[in-house]
Amino acid sequence: MYQSAGNNTSTEFPIPDKMKAWVLGGPDELFLRDKPTPVPARAEVLVRIDAVAICATDLEIIHSGSPASIQGGLPFNKNFTPGHEYMGTIAALGPNVDEYKIGERVSVEIHAGCGQCKRCRQGMYTSCLNYGKPEKGHRANGFTTDGGFAEYAINHINTLACVPDTMSDAEATLVVTAGTSMYALTELGGLVAGESVVVIGPGPIGLLAVAVAKALGASPVILTGTRPKRLAIGKELGADRTINIAEENPVEIVRQLTGGIGADYVIECAGTMETVDQAIHMTNRGGKLCLAAFPHEPVTTDLAHLVRNNIYVYGIRGEGRSATHRAMELMAEKRFDATKIHTHTFPLADLPTALRYARERVDDAIKVVVTNRHAAAVASAAE
Amino acid sequence: MYQSAGNNTSTEFPIPDKMKAWVLGGPDELFLRDKPTPVPARAEVLVRIDAVAICATDLEIIHSGSPASIQGGLPFNKNFTPGHEYMGTIAALGPNVDEYKIGERVSVEIHAGCGQCKRCRQGMYTSCLNYGKPEKGHRANGFTTDGGFAEYAINHINTLACVPDTMSDAEATLVVTAGTSMYALTELGGLVAGESVVVIGPGPIGLLAVAVAKALGASPVILTGTRPKRLAIGKELGADRTINIAEENPVEIVRQLTGGIGADYVIECAGTMETVDQAIHMTNRGGKLCLAAFPHEPVTTDLAHLVRNNIYVYGIRGEGRSATHRAMELMAEKRFDATKIHTHTFPLADLPTALRYARERVDDAIKVVVTNRHAAAVASAAE
Amino acid sequence: MYQSAGNNTSTEFPIPDKMKAWVLGGPDELFLRDKPTPVPARAEVLVRIDAVAICATDLEIIHSGSPASIQGGLPFNKNFTPGHEYMGTIAALGPNVDEYKIGERVSVEIHAGCGQCKRCRQGMYTSCLNYGKPEKGHRANGFTTDGGFAEYAINHINTLACVPDTMSDAEATLVVTAGTSMYALTELGGLVAGESVVVIGPGPIGLLAVAVAKALGASPVILTGTRPKRLAIGKELGADRTINIAEENPVEIVRQLTGGIGADYVIECAGTMETVDQAIHMTNRGGKLCLAAFPHEPVTTDLAHLVRNNIYVYGIRGEGRSATHRAMELMAEKRFDATKIHTHTFPLADLPTALRYARERVDDAIKVVVTNRHAAAVASAAE
Amino acid sequence: MYQSAGNNTSTEFPIPDKMKAWVLGGPDELFLRDKPTPVPARAEVLVRIDAVAICATDLEIIHSGSPASIQGGLPFNKNFTPGHEYMGTIAALGPNVDEYKIGERVSVEIHAGCGQCKRCRQGMYTSCLNYGKPEKGHRANGFTTDGGFAEYAINHINTLACVPDTMSDAEATLVVTAGTSMYALTELGGLVAGESVVVIGPGPIGLLAVAVAKALGASPVILTGTRPKRLAIGKELGADRTINIAEENPVEIVRQLTGGIGADYVIECAGTMETVDQAIHMTNRGGKLCLAAFPHEPVTTDLAHLVRNNIYVYGIRGEGRSATHRAMELMAEKRFDATKIHTHTFPLADLPTALRYARERVDDAIKVVVTNRHAAAVASAAE
Repeated sequence: MYQSAGNNTSTEFPIPDKMKAWVLGGPDELFLRDKPTPVPARAEVLVRIDAVAICATDLEIIHSGSPASIQGGLPFNKNFTPGHEYMGTIAALGPNVDEYKIGERVSVEIHAGCGQCKRCRQGMYTSCLNYGKPEKGHRANGFTTDGGFAEYAINHINTLACVPDTMSDAEATLVVTAGTSMYALTELGGLVAGESVVVIGPGPIGLLAVAVAKALGASPVILTGTRPKRLAIGKELGADRTINIAEENPVEIVRQLTGGIGADYVIECAGTMETVDQAIHMTNRGGKLCLAAFPHEPVTTDLAHLVRNNIYVYGIRGEGRSATHRAMELMAEKRFDATKIHTHTFPLADLPTALRYARERVDDAIKVVVTNRHAAAVASAAE
Repeated sequence: MYQSAGNNTSTEFPIPDKMKAWVLGGPDELFLRDKPTPVPARAEVLVRIDAVAICATDLEIIHSGSPASIQGGLPFNKNFTPGHEYMGTIAALGPNVDEYKIGERVSVEIHAGCGQCKRCRQGMYTSCLNYGKPEKGHRANGFTTDGGFAEYAINHINTLACVPDTMSDAEATLVVTAGTSMYALTELGGLVAGESVVVIGPGPIGLLAVAVAKALGASPVILTGTRPKRLAIGKELGADRTINIAEENPVEIVRQLTGGIGADYVIECAGTMETVDQAIHMTNRGGKLCLAAFPHEPVTTDLAHLVRNNIYVYGIRGEGRSATHRAMELMAEKRFDATKIHTHTFPLADLPTALRYARERVDDAIKVVVTNRHAAAVASAAE
Repeated sequence: MYQSAGNNTSTEFPIPDKMKAWVLGGPDELFLRDKPTPVPARAEVLVRIDAVAICATDLEIIHSGSPASIQGGLPFNKNFTPGHEYMGTIAALGPNVDEYKIGERVSVEIHAGCGQCKRCRQGMYTSCLNYGKPEKGHRANGFTTDGGFAEYAINHINTLACVPDTMSDAEATLVVTAGTSMYALTELGGLVAGESVVVIGPGPIGLLAVAVAKALGASPVILTGTRPKRLAIGKELGADRTINIAEENPVEIVRQLTGGIGADYVIECAGTMETVDQAIHMTNRGGKLCLAAFPHEPVTTDLAHLVRNNIYVYGIRGEGRSATHRAMELMAEKRFDATKIHTHTFPLADLPTALRYARERVDDAIKVVVTNRHAAAVASAAE
Repeated sequence: MYQSAGNNTSTEFPIPDKMKAWVLGGPDELFLRDKPTPVPARAEVLVRIDAVAICATDLEIIHSGSPASIQGGLPFNKNFTPGHEYMGTIAALGPNVDEYKIGERVSVEIHAGCGQCKRCRQGMYTSCLNYGKPEKGHRANGFTTDGGFAEYAINHINTLACVPDTMSDAEATLVVTAGTSMYALTELGGLVAGESVVVIGPGPIGLLAVAVAKALGASPVILTGTRPKRLAIGKELGADRTINIAEENPVEIVRQLTGGIGADYVIECAGTMETVDQAIHMTNRGGKLCLAAFPHEPVTTDLAHLVRNNIYVYGIRGEGRSATHRAMELMAEKRFDATKIHTHTFPLADLPTALRYARERVDDAIKVVVTNRHAAAVASAAE
């Protein structure tokens, strides 16, 4: 029988000893396997997974392995469960945990810092210097510790935010994406009412960056991209102006829209050499530029422009500084409708199909969500 | 007769109507000419120039023209006086100026913001959005407004710092360079005691960055470069370790010296593709990197490394946020000996020789200073 | 004839040489007088006053004199025009002003810093160390320089924000009040989504602090006071909970509403010993408290509680750090309805009546606005 | 036999099962007792105590009980070991600890935050919302968890700083005091070179605040107090000017020394109504005031002065934001001589005598240190 330390379990939530979980096989292979249901330690809870959104980095991990396996030089890590944009219901509590109750719905952020390194002590837990060392207390669920494509997962209480009753499971999976967008704005200074913000790249983070910036009063909010359908969603989420960079010169238009000086804040979510260059040249003197996408190759840029213009640049690898909580609040108050980027839903048992939709953008997929409300059904479907 | 508004002049400092000033001719040409002695307006003073240090950007301006002439598309600006690292004695006061007195020795910083734009209102006067528009009140002496290779210059009172009696004229010309180094550390957060700092490039800004970082308690302070003599001066100014990048791998050594994680703060003062790449890879997760040199060509870099590691980057084009005052204080208290980078002195009348020493690094020149203590002598020598 | 420097006037806006202006007489006396229409200098404009809101500090100045006259030890300043919460139309431009155009509607903030002192150089223009010295460039319209109870006033361009067509004159007079509330939140850190905020005192600044905090996503927003009608308006402006401190213990209730720890941010807008004490004890450990009201007498408080709990406190004397622009943007986007605090309107010619309504809170007056759309009518009415 | 988890012990440091420790009896009673030697958990180490400095708050706890016992309403906590300013040698490591090695000399800071609450997640671990809850991971050694008047103590690794060989045991006990002074300056902004700093009260924190401020380049550094001997030590530690408030008006003199405007930063370390009032009135407009002493009674102050002058105030209850590391670095580099405040030394077995010297300031005692180098001797002496 499942035995949590201190028996912090509830009869309402009987927990099986074993659970179904998708695990990595070889490159682009996933298998649905039985695993022991994990047991929460101090400051941790067990979350019953109810829904998971698929992120582009999930596709990379399934293709190339987790950061830990890559660093380790191993070809692949065969028992690892990916998936990091999930939400669920608290099923068991670690010792001394009273911050949450069994039965509460929660959404998650990815990173729990070690709490011991210099960065964690500064509050920069997503820059934890013990990244990838679970023995030091660090967790990056779905990256270096098991994630959400499973029936249950362990979360440090620092990674949780309560989901209000008025928010659906699917919407709640988007909170961590909105939290990443919010973190970009947090590092940009946060006080963006009346400031000009350009978002480059209408992927999920970019689209929600538009929504969050507008919710905080940024003006104008400008979105650049190449796909008209995506740009149209950006407009619905609050963009004052969209620029199709296949047709218009975004640097020139941003300058026109900002009295000739360029934008106060630019969030680069596309990661190409062309867009990074545009980002640099559309930021105004003393302005700030957040790189939120990973360029896959070295980028040749006009760094002298940064120097001449006192431009601040910083990279973010995900959420941070409790931005997920701020994003959750704006979503809870319906300040924007994140579900506009949720396009498809599959049961967890159909994860491979869901991944294909996400990877190939089948049917213009943006966010594909897998759900797990009826664990029994999932288990039987997979057998 | 020289007529200052409100007659804020003193009989102790009789001011001639005309003064000698070096002005730009064609590329790499300078002429010593007569100009009307300028008159200080509200919040301005007239400074009698006593000494000027030569900076690499002076050489560029003398070769290519001032930023204003370049932007204007003109081949050259024939009456412009360059020179921005100067100090002198207050000779006349603009209307209502009582912050300074005639006869006080002052060193200068370059930029006076317009005081009206968004950046100036934020205190970011070196990021002034009216850069190059003197009609809006912006001044960048030696860049967009007349500079210090002359008998007199106008300075906004915001650009002055008093020179203590214990500091020589030549040392006082170095305050603006130290102020730039201090500004780099200011933007890095300033609280560097016990933090690891790498300075890349042992030019004047780099060497004084070593000195300032050490004065503030940074540890270790590491300096990289290629010239052993310069690295040796860095050691004298406080570097705990120097790395000759022609012989050692700086990224590896910095990692070894920092417990495997890389440096907290990196100040890049070399501006080559190689050193920028090293800078990025030797900054630790969540660390900060200041670009203080202008790369002359586009730089190809691993921007994904910035994103993966939450690294902050910002460019600085000179001093800012009153860092010159903080640098002056440390120099006034003899916390480091900036004169170690002062290698040669010439009279202002020999400016061409001084420039040649600086340009060609004759006799291992670092900072070459021209002095103007006896204006009469200068004038006669030039005739 | 009215002669602006550089003739930056327009035939559309013929400006008379003389204007009507209310000036201070003895205590609580105001006279409508002719004054020369002022002429804008560099970086200044002439604003035709269209509407002015009355603030409690106007009443104090009319009763006791302006800060300048009080400091000067004079019984009163007989030619001074008070009034600082105004909006109007740009009627003439100072030399080189191209940031605004004649005919544009603008609202104002009070303080233009000198641009020269240490605080102004830091961007803290409302903490200008040359407060009250117009010869240094400082202006605090309606406090130390002539204000808005007149046909025209001079404003530094730093004190202007454009009014959108969709905003009424009366609403635009409230922007500076909302800007003060926004500044309180700015100093508190600004990123208040999901943070608990208590506002003490449902006066104009307090009520708009509720509105701004809610617009930025704060939750819960709690308002305390004694007048049920005011508290009800607070609810309409976004308060999640109101506390009538005559009936309930606000410290206890705030603790209950915040999981026992107290509020993250408290804005004290009442200024009594009782409410300051409540403010201190309802702020949580590491929380922040903004004092936005002037206690009229020394306050006895438990300062040890601040020390034991690492609480940050700061006083604000008005708007600052361009918060008025951020407030304007939120109002322009109709994120809250500031007009809920606007209760009464009178013509400028009836200023004494308007002041009486404000002073005696006749008919539950909150914000009383005087308008001046038809200057001719005002002039004739006053004769 | 002593059994650490994972046997992270060394034969070089044989650890007894039982240790001698002073424990609280009734008010002002201390007994030397045997206690089980504590065992370090995850992220903790066992420190063999080598020296402990006595702080005024130790005297309070010995007189009135620990915060936990006071909150608990208990008359006293009979088995509690006070003492928080200690240093020692690492004797055993908790599971997975590799940040430190057995045999390393370390000094400590007091607070280890829970790592879970909102404040800890912001890096504000001394404002931990789980203060006093060891089950959540919070420790305040000597306050809520056992402290250093014993042979051994447990420390979270976040509370350690390595002691260089060139620093004596006694000097190393002062690092936490210097760290508190450094934290005051950290919250004040840290970049104090050339800024005016007043320290009120020449106790240990005040005297080291003078030293730290001067080491960072503050100028002038002014110290106020009443005891000439203490003020003289302040001069030795770097004060540019001392003011005996029994003889001179400190507010007036500070204004004179700061060009009439008051000081940029004030650190109040006396905690009386008179000195708090002086502190408020000697801080300049937009300046910052740190309250670092606990007033024992409510304080009546002119809060309106704070509001009118945009003054920032914050209380600190000890060290924070890793300031102890920065202080250690300055001390390791001999930037100031903290031992000037160390006046007396006793063996740990004579703790009662040491406490009497500290309490009654016998022989002008400032810091009294007890040492424990030869544990055997201590034990036998106490029998």
